[in-house]
Amino acid sequence: MGSVHEVIVDLGERSYPIRIGSGVLAEVGTWLARQPGAPQVLIVTNEAVNSRWGEALRSSIKAAGLAVETVAIADGEEHKNLATLSMLYDRAIAMRLERSATVLALGGGIVGDVAGFFAATYMRGTGFVQVPTTLLAQVDSSVGGKTAVNHQAGKNLIGAFYQPQAVFIDTDTLSTLPKREVAAGYAEVVKTAMLGDAELFQLLERDQEKLLALDPAVVATVVARCCAVKARVVGADERERGLRALLNLGHTFGHAVEALTEYRRYKHGEAVAIGLVAACRLAETVLGLNRAVTERVTLLLTAAGLPVSFPCFARSAWSGALQLDKKVAHGNVLFVLVRAIGDCVLSRQIPLENAIDVIMELQEKSS
Amino acid sequence: MGSVHEVIVDLGERSYPIRIGSGVLAEVGTWLARQPGAPQVLIVTNEAVNSRWGEALRSSIKAAGLAVETVAIADGEEHKNLATLSMLYDRAIAMRLERSATVLALGGGIVGDVAGFFAATYMRGTGFVQVPTTLLAQVDSSVGGKTAVNHQAGKNLIGAFYQPQAVFIDTDTLSTLPKREVAAGYAEVVKTAMLGDAELFQLLERDQEKLLALDPAVVATVVARCCAVKARVVGADERERGLRALLNLGHTFGHAVEALTEYRRYKHGEAVAIGLVAACRLAETVLGLNRAVTERVTLLLTAAGLPVSFPCFARSAWSGALQLDKKVAHGNVLFVLVRAIGDCVLSRQIPLENAIDVIMELQEKSS
Ligand SMILES: NC(=O)c1ccc[n+]([C@@H]2O[C@H](COP(=O)([O-])OP(=O)(O)OC[C@H]3O[C@@H](n4cnc5c(N)ncnc54)[C@H](O)[C@@H]3O)[C@@H](O)[C@H]2O)c1
Ligand SMILES: NC(=O)c1ccc[n+]([C@@H]2O[C@H](COP(=O)([O-])OP(=O)(O)OC[C@H]3O[C@@H](n4cnc5c(N)ncnc54)[C@H](O)[C@@H]3O)[C@@H](O)[C@H]2O)c1
Repeated sequence: MGSVHEVIVDLGERSYPIRIGSGVLAEVGTWLARQPGAPQVLIVTNEAVNSRWGEALRSSIKAAGLAVETVAIADGEEHKNLATLSMLYDRAIAMRLERSATVLALGGGIVGDVAGFFAATYMRGTGFVQVPTTLLAQVDSSVGGKTAVNHQAGKNLIGAFYQPQAVFIDTDTLSTLPKREVAAGYAEVVKTAMLGDAELFQLLERDQEKLLALDPAVVATVVARCCAVKARVVGADERERGLRALLNLGHTFGHAVEALTEYRRYKHGEAVAIGLVAACRLAETVLGLNRAVTERVTLLLTAAGLPVSFPCFARSAWSGALQLDKKVAHGNVLFVLVRAIGDCVLSRQIPLENAIDVIMELQEKSS
Repeated sequence: MGSVHEVIVDLGERSYPIRIGSGVLAEVGTWLARQPGAPQVLIVTNEAVNSRWGEALRSSIKAAGLAVETVAIADGEEHKNLATLSMLYDRAIAMRLERSATVLALGGGIVGDVAGFFAATYMRGTGFVQVPTTLLAQVDSSVGGKTAVNHQAGKNLIGAFYQPQAVFIDTDTLSTLPKREVAAGYAEVVKTAMLGDAELFQLLERDQEKLLALDPAVVATVVARCCAVKARVVGADERERGLRALLNLGHTFGHAVEALTEYRRYKHGEAVAIGLVAACRLAETVLGLNRAVTERVTLLLTAAGLPVSFPCFARSAWSGALQLDKKVAHGNVLFVLVRAIGDCVLSRQIPLENAIDVIMELQEKSS
């Protein structure tokens, strides 16, 4: 095993470690065996991930002398819903899973969000550990305790804040990830650098190719830096009363893109990429952000093959979609604006029309 | 308005007040208007309660200058499920309820549990206030933050810990409550006295008739004392890691009764009444509890018209039903045993056979 990075999410008695590095999957069993009362263990995953990484995780758990069961949920955003959750409850009850059990989420953000909400609500809360296997989940969704399922009217409308007790990020798992998924996760890396780590942004400008080629040392460093930013923000504002909303840089636009295209055309990270450029453009118009910043961001994203233009819809459609955001208050949409690389601010004062102007300007040229 | 009792549930920054007395419904509007940002307000209730107390609550809210919407759920334990919850999500989204909204639960324990779980999970958590209108909800379910819905395999298997921000207990609302419901709530009053308030138990032995006739001063005193016991236990162990399980006195047996009779024959409180007697009998056999205690408990319950014998089922059926309890760990069922009035202990050491022996002994004589 190479060197392992550790980041702590500081939440008082609910603090937890994030272990990052090649081979950390093998640590999970020992960690579980150290928990009080040798818990029952349930892995929630999907078939694509299970076929590649399920055995490695189960071996570690069995080697530690614990029994383990596995349930696979269907792949795809359209299954991140109450029906899948309901299936998990049924299966857990059928196997007599106790509230003292530990649920492991092995997979991307979808598995993590669903398994996390399941762990939060099965018998009012079981143990929970994240084992993220996509770049997006490793740098973003597995840390911070947001769990949710979608409602037909919008994403993540049903959920809970429920922190894991540990996060094991095995960077080796990325080796089987499709390239398009790597790129999608990369959008969240760029986001993280933009909102809180200017040095990371420079590192990306220098080592982007190595990162996208999954050079182990670069991946581990980048993932650890992203986790550190996320841990800092979540530690300061666990329940998104203020600061934490910064993590939604690019997401207000991104969610609208996903909603209007019905979660089919774009990966979450791709929609965020478009949103990041839009957040820069909006900041240009309302804060006088230097155009050069927008260009550096655009360059990083396009070099990774990410989209940076909006799909074509009418202004009224964008208006409706933007207002579905969970962070709307009294009808005012919350935007995250870029002041400089590594420095963002929240604002509810932006007229929706300005945001829609930016979208119109960045719409794909019909060919 | 008569004199108002106030009990505080001490949970650090999530502490909240319980206001108890005749007419406190009228305080709700002013309280809401004092919250930051004049929240949207959604009342979750059912038709039976809405037709009697809905207007009074809405008047108070409107008088404070706030807008309010009402959604009624279907009456009855069989509707305390994911389908009802799903309907609430749909309605909330359709009315563009924001996460900054406050959800008021106006009704008994069912409305409180469902509305509470809805508030816990809609957009990962809205504001939440309990306005309990059954005796059971006033002395027990509205305080402490347990929320849940049922699964076909068992009660309250899906839920969350989610504390309200305030509890308004208007004792006037009991005036329209069917007598059978008053009695059912009374079982939880007896339970509370048995587990933590010997003086309350004596007060019940003296003033039981006045309480059941809903004498306002007696009701307010008794409800306030029950809330104080519950607040103390919840303050010491919010998430039921230990002590809080004491509140389940009579419930391990009670839940088994409800499960085997499919939640049809008995009200929750009635099943608890049977369970309380069984918990005493079990304590007689394993702790040598004085038979006189069991008799005093039985007397209080039967005087209120509550059942104290188990329905007839085979030993194997009881065994299965007892082991469905959420508090089972490594297959061991958790029992609460009475050492003396006002003093109970937890035990996982009781052989299931002893518990089933007690049930057999207390089964109804077939007539
Ligand atoms: N909770 C949060 O804080 C948070 C933050 C951001 C995004 N999210 C959510 O995360 C979800 C997106 O997550 P995602 O991008 O990881 O998508 P995903 O979970 O759908 O994973 C992407 C695809 O990669 C496959 N996969 C995963 N790991 C693999 C591996 N190691 N090898 C081969 N294939 C693998 C999956 O089966 C899937 O087909 C969205 O639902 C989004 O809302 C949550
Ligand atoms: N969360 C907890 O800590 C906790 C504790 C104990 C019980 N519970 C749950 O509470 C539920 C039982 O609660 P309950 O006994 O209040 O039952 P309930 O909510 O079904 O109410 C009983 C009946 O009285 C009616 N009603 C309510 N208030 C009325 C009023 N003022 N006037 C006229 N009719 C009125 C209701 O419509 C219903 O038909 C169970 O589901 C149980 O699991 C929860």
